[in-house]
Amino acid sequence: MKQLDYFFNPKSVAIIGASHKPDKIGYAILANFLGAGFERKIYPINPDTKPILGLNVCKSILDVKDDLDLVVVVVPAAFVPDALKECVKKKIEAIIIISAGFSEVGEEGKKLETKCKRIIEGAYTRIIGPNCIGIYDPYTRVDTLFLSRERCGRPKEGNIAFISQSGAVGSTILDWLSEEDVGISKFISYGNAMDLDDCDFLEYLGDDDKTKVITVYLEGIEASGQKFMKIVKKVTKKKPVIILKSGKTEKGLKAVLSHTGSLGGSSKIYSAAFKQTGVIEASTWEELFDFARGFSTQPLPKGNRIAIITDGGGFGVLATDEADRQNLQLPEPSEKLKKEFSGVMPPYAVLHNPIDLTGDTNANRYKVVIESCLKSNEYDGVIAITLFQVPTLEKEVVDEIVKLHRKYDKPLIACAAGGKFSQELSRKLMKGGVPVFSTPERAVRTMGALVKYREWLNK
Amino acid sequence: MKQLDYFFNPKSVAIIGASHKPDKIGYAILANFLGAGFERKIYPINPDTKPILGLNVCKSILDVKDDLDLVVVVVPAAFVPDALKECVKKKIEAIIIISAGFSEVGEEGKKLETKCKRIIEGAYTRIIGPNCIGIYDPYTRVDTLFLSRERCGRPKEGNIAFISQSGAVGSTILDWLSEEDVGISKFISYGNAMDLDDCDFLEYLGDDDKTKVITVYLEGIEASGQKFMKIVKKVTKKKPVIILKSGKTEKGLKAVLSHTGSLGGSSKIYSAAFKQTGVIEASTWEELFDFARGFSTQPLPKGNRIAIITDGGGFGVLATDEADRQNLQLPEPSEKLKKEFSGVMPPYAVLHNPIDLTGDTNANRYKVVIESCLKSNEYDGVIAITLFQVPTLEKEVVDEIVKLHRKYDKPLIACAAGGKFSQELSRKLMKGGVPVFSTPERAVRTMGALVKYREWLNK
Repeated sequence: MKQLDYFFNPKSVAIIGASHKPDKIGYAILANFLGAGFERKIYPINPDTKPILGLNVCKSILDVKDDLDLVVVVVPAAFVPDALKECVKKKIEAIIIISAGFSEVGEEGKKLETKCKRIIEGAYTRIIGPNCIGIYDPYTRVDTLFLSRERCGRPKEGNIAFISQSGAVGSTILDWLSEEDVGISKFISYGNAMDLDDCDFLEYLGDDDKTKVITVYLEGIEASGQKFMKIVKKVTKKKPVIILKSGKTEKGLKAVLSHTGSLGGSSKIYSAAFKQTGVIEASTWEELFDFARGFSTQPLPKGNRIAIITDGGGFGVLATDEADRQNLQLPEPSEKLKKEFSGVMPPYAVLHNPIDLTGDTNANRYKVVIESCLKSNEYDGVIAITLFQVPTLEKEVVDEIVKLHRKYDKPLIACAAGGKFSQELSRKLMKGGVPVFSTPERAVRTMGALVKYREWLNK
Repeated sequence: MKQLDYFFNPKSVAIIGASHKPDKIGYAILANFLGAGFERKIYPINPDTKPILGLNVCKSILDVKDDLDLVVVVVPAAFVPDALKECVKKKIEAIIIISAGFSEVGEEGKKLETKCKRIIEGAYTRIIGPNCIGIYDPYTRVDTLFLSRERCGRPKEGNIAFISQSGAVGSTILDWLSEEDVGISKFISYGNAMDLDDCDFLEYLGDDDKTKVITVYLEGIEASGQKFMKIVKKVTKKKPVIILKSGKTEKGLKAVLSHTGSLGGSSKIYSAAFKQTGVIEASTWEELFDFARGFSTQPLPKGNRIAIITDGGGFGVLATDEADRQNLQLPEPSEKLKKEFSGVMPPYAVLHNPIDLTGDTNANRYKVVIESCLKSNEYDGVIAITLFQVPTLEKEVVDEIVKLHRKYDKPLIACAAGGKFSQELSRKLMKGGVPVFSTPERAVRTMGALVKYREWLNK
C-alpha cells in the first residue's frame, strides 16, 4: 500500500473541528461524509463532546482507541499546530488541512505554515493543504468538500483524475462533470501545498489503475521546475496529462501572486516545458474539460488522418478551418471508398472531405459512411457532425453511431448543437461513450489533442 | 414601405409546391406557417386541388383572386422557372426559393439559375434563395423553415438579427437561441443569393427598428468586395455587425467552394476588411452567439477599464489572462473605492483587480462591491464571476445583480458554471438581462467585443 492510499482509501477518519452548528464547515464535511455513503469509521473531534449527527464525539484524536488512517483538520489556523502535534503523536500518516489563514494571507501566515512544517519533520505524516477543499473519491466516498451536494454535484465513478490548486475552479468543474454525467477517479484540491505537491499527486495518479487521464489546473509549480519536468515526463509516457496553466499573461501572473502566492513563472517557459514533457496544454477552462472527455472515452488514433462527416456544409467548413489549425490531415476518400459511399449517397452529393451527407440524410447514410471510414486504412479517426434538426434523420442514428464506436478501435467524436431534441440525442450518444461537443471547433480541437498525445508516445 | 418588408410582413402568402404528404417539405412549411400563428392569408398552390390542412388549394397563383405579397417556392428545381414566370405575371414583389439543385450542384444547375435570373430581369420581383431555408420573423410569424418545431425550436421576439448563408448553421443557432431563451428580430438564410445578397440584408437590417445587433455567418461575400465594404461601414456606424467568416484556412476555403460555391477569398483580406469597416469578427461559432448576447442586452462601455469581481481566485486569474489578450485595462481600485469595499470585506481580503470576494462571500458583498464599481468613474464595465457553489452565498445575489444592471448604464457581464443549482440561478440572471457565460474567457471576450465596437464608434 502506498502512503497516498491512506488519503483515498482510509479505513477510519477523524475530523478535528467537526462542528455541532449546521452553518459551519466542520459540520458540512461530516455531513458530506455521512451523506456520501462512506462506510468506514468516522470520528468527530471537538472539545464539546455532545454527539454530532448521531456520532460520538472525542475531545482529541488521542482519545480515539481505534487506529486512524486519515485526519481532516478544520479548526482555525491558530489551532492547527496543536492538532498536528497530536497527529504526529498518534503516528497519523495522512492529514488534510482545510483551514485557511496560512501563507496566502502574508507574513504571519507564512510563519504559521513553517511552524506546521517543522512539526511533521521526521514523522511519517504527510499533509494535503492547507487552504484547500481537499479530496473526493467516488469509489471510496471520501469527500472532504465543504460544499453541499445541493449546490455542488459530485461526479460518478469514472477514469478522469483532477488536480487543482484552486478550490473554486476544482469544485466548479466537479459540479459541471456531475451535471454532464462524466465520471472521475479522484479529485484533489491541494491549496498551499505545504507538504504534498503537484509532483507527488502526478506520480501517484500515474500509477493509479482507476485513472486513465490526469487533468490539472495549475497556477504555478510548487516543486522545482526540474523535478516537475522529470516526473511529468515519466507520467506522460504512461497516460495523458492535460494541464490548464493560468496566469499566462503578465497581468494574470500578478493575479496568481495575490491568490495562492505561488510563483507563476513565464508563460513561454511553461509552454516549452509542457511540450518537452508530452503534456497536453489546454488553453481555456472549457478545453481542459473537453480534452478530458476525449481521452476518457476514446482510443488513441494511430495517425492524424481524419474524416469529417457532416449533414451541414457550414459546420463542415468550420471544422475544416480548425482541423487546419490543429495540423490534422483531411485526405480525400479513395475511389474505392467513394464507391462504398455512393450506394447510400444522393447522386448530387460531392464526395470530398468533409463528406457532406447533405440536409436530407438519414441514419443509414451516417452508418455506412462512418463505418467505411473506420474500417478503411485511409483514416485514423472520425468526426461526425450530426445536426439532429434535419427532418429526415431518424433518432436511431444515435444507436448506430454508438455501435460503431464499440466495434472499431478508432476515435469517434461527435458535434451537435441546439435545443431539447438535440440535447436529448446528444446525451444518449455520450452515454454510449461518444463525446459530443456543441461546436465543430471544440470537437476538432479534442481530436487534435488525441493526435498530439499519440505523436508524443511515438517519439 | 420598403420592398424587403414584403418578405417579413406580408399580408398574404402563397406556397407553390404545398404538399398533401406530411413527409414533404411543401407540407412542413405550410404546417409551420399555420402552427406559428401567422394570422394573414395563406394560399397553398398544387396541381392537385384537394384541400391541405383544411385550406383550399389553387392550381396556380394566377388563380388566386387576392393580391399576394410573398410567394414561397418549394417545387423541384426544374419547375422553378415556370413558377417564376407566373410570379412575374402576377407582379409578385417577394419570392423565397427553398428548392435546391442550382449553382451548388454544378454546370447544369448554374444554367438553371441564370435562366431564373433572366425571368425576373426588369420586373419588381426580388428573390431570396434558392437552396436556402428562408426566413423566420417571430413578430409576424413568417416561418419558411421546413424544420419541425419539435426538432428545431424557434426563438422568441428579441433584438438580434441573424443572417446565414448556410441553412444548417442558421437553423442550429435558432434552435440554440430558443433553448437559451434569447430573442431575435429576424432570421434570414439566403443560400445561393441568386438575387438578394448579404449587402441587401445588411442595409435593410441597418434601418430595422427591431434590430439592435446584426450577426452574420459568412462563407464568402456574394456582392463585390468594394460594395460590401461600403455598405457594412455605413451599417456599423448605426449598430454592431458581428461576422463569423468560415473557410478562413486554405483547406476550409476549399470546403466552402464545394458547399455554396461562393468564392471564399483569403482570410487575411477578410480580417483586414472587417477591421477597416468596424465589423466585430467572431472567431468561432460560440463566439458569434456570445457576442450577440452581449450586444443584445448590454449598453456600450465608455472605455476599456474593467473591474473583475470574483468569489474564486482561480477564475479571476483566468479572466485576467483573457483581459490582457483583449487589451482590457484592469486598474487597481483607488483608496476611496477600497474604503467603500472594506465595510463588507473580511480583513484578510486583498483588494486588487480582480477583486477577490473570497470563498465565504455573501450576496451583500457582491452588491456593495459591484455597485461601487458601477457608480465610480474608475471603471467602464464590470465582469462578475459568481460561483454559486460557495455555501455562504445567498440565492438573492441574483436579484441584487439584476437590480444593479437596471440601475446603471454600464455593461455588466457574469460568469458562472456548474450543475443544476448554478444553472437555475444563471437562468434567472439572464432573464434579468445579465448575460452569463460558463467560462471566464468567454465572459471577458464578450466584454472585449463591446469595447472594440465603442472604439470603432469613437473613431
